[in-house]
Parts: sequence; C-alpha cells; structure tokens
Amino acid sequence: MPRTEEANQRIREEQRAKILDAAWRAFAKKGTAATMAEVAAEADVSYGLVYRYFSSKEAIFKALVEQMLQSGVLRVQRLLDQPGTPGERLTSLITKILEARRERSEIFLLFQHVMSDETMSEDVRKRLQERGQAYYDGMRQLIVEAQATGEVVADDPDQLVVALMAYLDGLSRLAARESEMLKEHFPDPEIVLRMLKP
Amino acid sequence: MPRTEEANQRIREEQRAKILDAAWRAFAKKGTAATMAEVAAEADVSYGLVYRYFSSKEAIFKALVEQMLQSGVLRVQRLLDQPGTPGERLTSLITKILEARRERSEIFLLFQHVMSDETMSEDVRKRLQERGQAYYDGMRQLIVEAQATGEVVADDPDQLVVALMAYLDGLSRLAARESEMLKEHFPDPEIVLRMLKP
Repeated sequence: MPRTEEANQRIREEQRAKILDAAWRAFAKKGTAATMAEVAAEADVSYGLVYRYFSSKEAIFKALVEQMLQSGVLRVQRLLDQPGTPGERLTSLITKILEARRERSEIFLLFQHVMSDETMSEDVRKRLQERGQAYYDGMRQLIVEAQATGEVVADDPDQLVVALMAYLDGLSRLAARESEMLKEHFPDPEIVLRMLKP
Repeated sequence: MPRTEEANQRIREEQRAKILDAAWRAFAKKGTAATMAEVAAEADVSYGLVYRYFSSKEAIFKALVEQMLQSGVLRVQRLLDQPGTPGERLTSLITKILEARRERSEIFLLFQHVMSDETMSEDVRKRLQERGQAYYDGMRQLIVEAQATGEVVADDPDQLVVALMAYLDGLSRLAARESEMLKEHFPDPEIVLRMLKP
C-alpha cells in the first residue's frame, strides 16, 4: 500500500527535526566549524539526505535560530514575570542566564555567529537583534525597579546593564574557545551579582 | 648622486612603519574587515607599494602583533611592579586595562582575531597565548596577595580571575561590534571592581 501524502509529510517533518537535533549536538561539539558531513554522521543519515532538507550550513543555522526564537527559551517576559521583589527577580534572571550559558553555550555561540555573519538573512539577524534589545530593556527595567527598593546600587542603570551584558558575552566567548579555565573555574553567580550590590 | 644602500634601507623602514601606522588606523575604523586598499589609502601610498612590504592582510596582522609584543605595552610585570598595597595595585591594573580597552580597542580586536584565525602563524599565536597566560598569572597573584591583606573577597581566586577576564573580553567584543550602548554608557571601573569587594 503506498504511503499517503499525510504520512509522507509526517516522515519529512520527523527527518527534518532529527537533522536539527543532530545539528545542535554537532554544533555543541565543534562550534560553528561543524560541517554538513558531521551533522549527517551525528543524525546517522546520509550526507545527501541532509542536503535534501538544508541547502547549506547557513540554512541549518537559520533553522536553528528560528527554532530558538519560536521555542520561547528566549522569551524575556517569562523570565521577568516571576514572583519576588525586583532584586530577587533580577538575581533569579541573572542566575538562569548563567546556567544557560554554562549548560547550553552552543546556543549563544550560534547567535554570536549569526549576528556577525553578514551573509545571514537580514530577517533572522533583525529578529535576533530585537530579542537582544528586549533583554537589554527587561534587565534595565528590573535594575531601575530594584534601585527604587534599594536592592541595587544607585549607579547609572545603563552602565550596569552594559557591564552585565559584557560579562555574559565574555563568558560565552570563553566557552566558545573551550577554555579549560572556564570549565574548571566557572565563576559563581555571587561574583557577578556583587557588581549590582548597594 | 645615487642613494647609498644605507639610505635605501632607512627609506624602506620608514615606509614600512608608515604602512603599519596606517594599518592601525584603518583597523580602528573598520576592524579586521579593513582591506589592503583601505590601508594603502590611509597611508596615502599606492596599493602596489603596500604589497611590496606585506604579501597579505595576514602579514600585516602578524607585523602589528609583533609590534605590540615588542613594544612592552603588554608587559605584565611593568603593570604589576607598581607602588601601593596589593589591593591598590590590582585596582590600578584593572583601571589601566579598562582605559586601554576603551581607547585602543583595535589592539584587542586584533588579538582576538589572530587567536581565532587558524591560518595565522603558530608562533605568533603561541606568543600571544603566553602573554595571555602571563596576564592571568599576574592577576591571580595580585588577587591572592590582596586576599591576604583583606582587600579582596576570599572567593576562589581562579573564579575571580576568570570573571575579570570574561568581563574584559566581553567589553572588547562590544567594542568590536561598535556598540552604541558601550560608547554612550562605558561602565565605570567601580562597577567591575565591586566583583572583588570583601
């Protein structure tokens, strides 16, 4: 009995998802230098099959970024709408970001790669940039609120956000270089949180 | 009267130095994306002349890194051998590094570029890596000494150095992206120094 169009569609979606899962793993291992062949090996499918779904490595990157943007992993509002005082929510937000950078550094590597790759589709880069801006704004808002409650030092809130962003970006960079010192001595969240202490 | 060999040699050295100065300027403006043609324009010499001295952009990068390594700008010992308590010396070291990253961010961009460019000569990368290690060690030593005097918090010194390095690296990355927010809100040294406060 021939497969129905519906069944074929389901198989295609499953294969595509399987390749993307494999791409994350290949990417976690090799960074953006991972090749299409390594993605195929990781997915345990042929090189040709990967090409049937994705015309290039950039197409895979784009699909991975889309996946992240849609998944809500990056939804700032969800992170902001937590119980507690502004200072507690800020602490919880920063701690969660640090955990994510530690455990899934490949996501942030991918973002950095896509943002600095001028051949990447303008649309994807623009949406990532908007998401970055939303993070900046959300963090700034929490800082201002926590300054009002006296939980955060009364410095210029923009300087504080830039300092936090620089720190988080720098950690991702060290992770990107597979820094042994980062693996062995990942700084406790307390250290960066002191930057905000009154 | 024909020029002597000595005079010719002097002219060659002057031209080479002029091209390297221009390369720093082109590089400060355009980052590592600056082209040989832009270096030539900045030096106000022909494209061909630049090529007579440097066979490729990588050759220019290499010469610039050599220049830095020789100039002593990066000599850690000079920064460590300052008067004052360990805490004061550490504060002064970090403040100086921040000033340098702010005012001559192109130097650090170049280093990052060279370190991540696998086509770059192994020798240059190795020497840069050694210099980076010397910074790490020097900073760690000051932190341990400042912990003994009670000027720095009694956290794991390696975590503190990694946190400082991440912060400094992140600032360079923001500078690399010509971040407007970094230009407008460059964080005061006080902010990062709080990471070390007891």
